[in-house]
Formats: sequence, structure tokens, C-alpha cells
Amino acid sequence: MSEYIEHDRHGVSVGLVIRQQFTFAEPPNRMRLDSGAALGPITIAYETCGRLNAARSNAVLVLHALSGDAHVAGYHSKDDPKPGWWEFMVGPGKGIDTERYFVICSNILGSCGGTTGPCSINPDTQKPYGLTFPVVTIGDMVRAQKHLLDHLGIDQVLAVVGGSIGGMQVLQWCMRYPERVRAAIPLATTTRHSALAIAFNEVARQAIMTDPNFNGGDYYQGPKPATGLSLARMIGHITYLSDEAMRQKFGRRLQDKSDFSFNFDADFQVESYLRYQGSKFVERFDANSFCYITKAADYFDLQNQHGKGSLASAFANVRARFMVVSFTSDWLYPTYQSRAMVKAMKKNGLDVSFCEIQADCGHDAFLLPIDRLAEVISGFLRRVNNEA
Amino acid sequence: MSEYIEHDRHGVSVGLVIRQQFTFAEPPNRMRLDSGAALGPITIAYETCGRLNAARSNAVLVLHALSGDAHVAGYHSKDDPKPGWWEFMVGPGKGIDTERYFVICSNILGSCGGTTGPCSINPDTQKPYGLTFPVVTIGDMVRAQKHLLDHLGIDQVLAVVGGSIGGMQVLQWCMRYPERVRAAIPLATTTRHSALAIAFNEVARQAIMTDPNFNGGDYYQGPKPATGLSLARMIGHITYLSDEAMRQKFGRRLQDKSDFSFNFDADFQVESYLRYQGSKFVERFDANSFCYITKAADYFDLQNQHGKGSLASAFANVRARFMVVSFTSDWLYPTYQSRAMVKAMKKNGLDVSFCEIQADCGHDAFLLPIDRLAEVISGFLRRVNNEA
Repeated sequence: MSEYIEHDRHGVSVGLVIRQQFTFAEPPNRMRLDSGAALGPITIAYETCGRLNAARSNAVLVLHALSGDAHVAGYHSKDDPKPGWWEFMVGPGKGIDTERYFVICSNILGSCGGTTGPCSINPDTQKPYGLTFPVVTIGDMVRAQKHLLDHLGIDQVLAVVGGSIGGMQVLQWCMRYPERVRAAIPLATTTRHSALAIAFNEVARQAIMTDPNFNGGDYYQGPKPATGLSLARMIGHITYLSDEAMRQKFGRRLQDKSDFSFNFDADFQVESYLRYQGSKFVERFDANSFCYITKAADYFDLQNQHGKGSLASAFANVRARFMVVSFTSDWLYPTYQSRAMVKAMKKNGLDVSFCEIQADCGHDAFLLPIDRLAEVISGFLRRVNNEA
Repeated sequence: MSEYIEHDRHGVSVGLVIRQQFTFAEPPNRMRLDSGAALGPITIAYETCGRLNAARSNAVLVLHALSGDAHVAGYHSKDDPKPGWWEFMVGPGKGIDTERYFVICSNILGSCGGTTGPCSINPDTQKPYGLTFPVVTIGDMVRAQKHLLDHLGIDQVLAVVGGSIGGMQVLQWCMRYPERVRAAIPLATTTRHSALAIAFNEVARQAIMTDPNFNGGDYYQGPKPATGLSLARMIGHITYLSDEAMRQKFGRRLQDKSDFSFNFDADFQVESYLRYQGSKFVERFDANSFCYITKAADYFDLQNQHGKGSLASAFANVRARFMVVSFTSDWLYPTYQSRAMVKAMKKNGLDVSFCEIQADCGHDAFLLPIDRLAEVISGFLRRVNNEA
């Protein structure tokens, strides 16, 4: 089941986006998860841009963050109003140049963009999993992606690239499957969540799970927990921005008014913005997936899970070359957390470059059109590719 | 209606806390609010510690923050399990020494600790106001406090002191009633909310107002919007702490478990802590009051309301001496915001001291037992008192 769509932007054909699904089966048709539970069959939705070369050596695996999906770049049709989530970065001549590299992006396990997740039908019951879906980890997401690479016949990728929760997957790839990764670009990420990051996720999950429509995760036949998911997204949005970004973007500007309402309407633009972001998100994202993916991020802990408490030990078997990127105003995964991972990599003699990019826009910077980021990524990929 | 209670700590009588209510009336028995609405009669719940001297010159007005009340220090009885909210700071021989000063603390307008607020009975309908309560401002809170000082026969206070929203009241006092304030100590506060601070408040209010039990603010006869208020408190709590404070306090420590639950229970201590803080708050605080007080804080904007956009102009008529205090890890009202107010004060030739206190505990630092803070406050008060 595959669909070929022209990568068409403003009427000009600039490449090829291939949108596919793949259902894999390990005997007995299940994948063993980190929790010990088994899950299967698992379907993975993925898209590719560019062409795999004859040596099968130019694949770049892009790993998306919490609310992303497989649609990384391009338009699905001429009438498609919105391109993929990393259109700025992925495409012909761009930071990740689809004329050179074969880009693969798959929707993560537990999400709601085509890959198996809590909104998928449980074959045993013929009903959506809901909260009977097993809790998955970043490691499980990566294990599923490995099956995809096997399916595509790619032994080693040129690079794994991703920001935030995508960056966690990047790091996890390098530890779980060191022989399959030549280079890695973790962006705006961390080797484990701080208490602050867990706290924000927990409040967001509580907002969803205490919504009366949540109904223990079994809401697919009735009204959705839209209020809770909207609140969760609002909380998330605050953490993706920064004090400075919000000052520049909104300040104290009022919404369509010359003075205060003296009631509980949205007086300030920042209030309207958050309400809008919340309500828009509800249309495209599944509340259960939000809970599962944030839980996976909270559980992620490289030093404990791979290094017995030592981050340096966790990187002991890693072989990839690294380009670690952080952003000055990211307070969700601040630069000091990137520096800690760089230090651990260096202790193992790994080839690491580190770049802290000056940006006022907070954690979300990795998703925004920042030329410096595109330069850093394209330069690094070219070096790795040339030194093959 | 007044009640005299011994200030009794561990069985030792150390002072006197007087707990009183005062209902004031302006003709026509209403107070005009900044919104243009009229409200009345207004009852103010307040407590005092220490004794007013014969010259009536030793009063220190303490102004509480969002969730505080008039019970600033001491115990209401020998069996009282908890002292007032600033027990560390207020008492005999403490930072605000009740053997020298007459401390007054009143519950703020719009709150739920005895002073008129949305949970009070509207005399016109004989029902709780709920959302028919008018939106009040920090200026309105201060105007009500001025009536209390008139009632107590105090022409000028030695000092106004308060942190966070209490600090906003401190600044507002100095602008509205410059002749009535000799000295002022704004702690961990700001002259206006950033977009970030507004954003957090807005999400918290949305959590409350979208709770099905909120019922448009009319919930006093039925179930309370406990879920929403609990979420709001959890969000607030995150902003009161800091990345470093949360790392020290919780890190990634698990709650009564050796491993992850692989379900949506609270795995981490920080999750349990937030859930507990949320549920505890619901028992003692009114959801409508939370909305009104946060709205007042969002509206607060000294430069626009008193300086036509210029903070320096806003301080033009102020006469008080200032001790401005900020805390290094306060990211809700960061030090740069205190520096801006200090600069504006200095432009007007005001006598200002500024102290940034090194503290890892975030915004909440002003409420915590920090010796340096007590020293700064006691030293400043003594200087002001001696130079009378």
C-alpha cells in the first residue's frame, strides 16, 4: 500500500515524496517492548524524499518530536495548503538536501499519524486500544524504526537527525544500534528529563486525564477530551517559547481592543494565541497519544538505562560522529544539558562537534527557519558524506 | 467583631495576634473601582501583631500574594497546627520585629479569606457574587487597604512590604498614596507582567473555567471545580520553583517504587508532589478568587497606568525610600525586571537600595526561611525607623 505524490511547491515540481505504510511482524507477530509487554502487528507510516543511491548509503533518518508525523516536507498535492513540518530544512538544495540524500521520516510508535498507537484498532478486541495500549519507550520507538530500515534494506544510515523527543530517538539509535548509524544530529534535546520537564508533562497529562470526556481513554465513540488536550497544548506551547520570544511576539499587546475588557475574555494577544493553538491542536492530535509520548519522554534516561547511572558509560559502545546543537533560549532542555552529553561523548573519544545557536525563540527554534541551523546541518552532512 | 488570640508558639506566649474584620462604607456605601463599577459594602479581614506606638508611627503593612491571607504570623491557638504564612519573617526579634513594629496584614479584595470577594454574599441578591463580582485591580486592592488604615487612624505607615502580587501592591501604594508611605520593600515582583507570566495565568484560568463544575462561576451550591483549580495550582507551583530547585528537591527520584510503573500513575516524586499540592489547595482556596486575583495581576501595568508608557514617569510623584529585592532563580519575575524598576526610581532621585539574593529556590524564595532576606529587611526597617 504505497502512494506516490509529487513534491509540488507553487506549481513547480521539485522532487518526490513517497508516502507509505509498512506492517511488520516478528514471530509470533509481536514486538517485545521495554515494559515486557508484547505489541503487534505494528504498522509504520512513513514518507521518503529523494532517492536511495545504488550503494544504499545516502539515507538520512529524520525523527520527529511530540506532535510531528511522517510528513516531513513537501506538499501532498497542488492544493495542499500546508507543507511538511520541516519544509524549511528538507528539500532540494536545503539543509538536508534531497538531491543528495534519501530522507526517511516515520511516524513514531504510540502516535496518531498512521503508525500503531492508542487510537489504532486492537486486533484482539476489534476496538481502539485506548489505555490498553502498552506504555512505550523511546527505545521501543527506535526498535520499530529499525524494522523499517530492515524492510527498506538499509544496513546503515548516513545520519539520524531530530529535535526534542526526536533528538532523544537520535541518541537512542546510537546506543541501541551503533553499527547502523554513521552520524547523528541531536537538536535541542537532553539525555533525560529534568524534574521541571516532567512536571510540565505531568500537568498536561492531568489536564487530559481529568477531562470528563476522557473516559479512561475510551472516547473514540463519543466526545473527545478536547478541553483537556487543548489545555495540555497550551501548557506545552509556553514551554516551547521563551520569555524573550513571547515578549517579542506578543508583549502586552491587547487583542482587538483599546482597553481592558474587565471580564474574563482574552484581553491580551498571548491569551488568544494560546487558546487558538489549543483548539487547533485538538483537530489533529489524539489525546491518548499525547499521554503516551510524553510518558515515553519522561521515562527516557540514558545514563540509568544504558550507563548504570553514568552518562559517559552510556556512550561507551557508540560509534557515530556527532553534531550536537542547542539554542540559547531553550529553557526546556537548556544548553547545559547538551554540554553534559557532549562531555560524555568526548570522554569516550567520540568525534563530536557542538554548536549553541543564538536564538530568542526558545525550544521551538529547531523547527523554525534559522539559516545558521541549516548551514550547520548541511555542512556536517556533507563532511560525513565526503569522508565515507 | 474582633477576636484576641495569643500568639503562642510551642506553648510560649510571644506576642499578640489580633484578628479582626472591618466593614467600611463610602457614600453611597460603595467603593468606585478602576473598571468604573461600584462595589459595597466591603468587608476587610485583617490581623495585627505587635502594638501601635503612641505616635502611631511604627506600622508596617504586609501585603500578601495570590494564595495568602491576613494570617501572616503566629498561631490562632495552642492546637493550631500551622502558623501564619510569613512566620519566619514576622514576630518578636525577627526580620519584621513585632516588638518594634505594629504589623498589619489584610486579606486582599477579591480573595476568599474573609475580605469581600466572589464567594461573598451579594447584598442585592443574597447569593454569592460568583462571576457577577466586578473585576478588581491591584489599585482597587490598595484602595480598600487605605480605608483600613483610615479606620485604624494611621496617617503614614513606616513601611509597606510584600512579595509577588504583594509586591505589586507595595508599588501601587507608593504611587496612589505617596504621602502615606515612608518606605517600601517590593520583593520578587514586577511593574507589569510579561507575556510569559500572563500566559501561565491564562492557562490556569482556562483550567478552572473549562471545568464542567465551574458552571459559569456559580458553583457554591454544588460540586466545586476542584479538578480545574487543582490543575491551576499545579501550573502555578511549577512557576514558583526553578529548574535548579526542582532538581534539588526531586530530581528524577521515583515515588515508592524501584522501577517505572509502565502506566499513568505518578512514577516520579515531582508528579506526586504536584498532585498533592493541587488537591490540598482545593480545600482552602476559592476558584473564582484565583481567576480574579490572577486577572488583577495581569492587568497591573505601572508604566501604562501611571506613566503614560514611561516607567520613570510613573515614579515621578513617589516619595518612599525603597529596598528592592529579587532572587537569582526567579524566572517568573526575573531580576532584570527589578533592575528596570530600580533604574526608574533612581531617575526620579529616589533613595533606593537593591539586593539580588542568591537563591536556587525560584520565585517562592521570598516565602522561604532565607536568613539573608530577613537581615536585609530588618536592617532597612531599622534605618528607616531611626531616621524618622
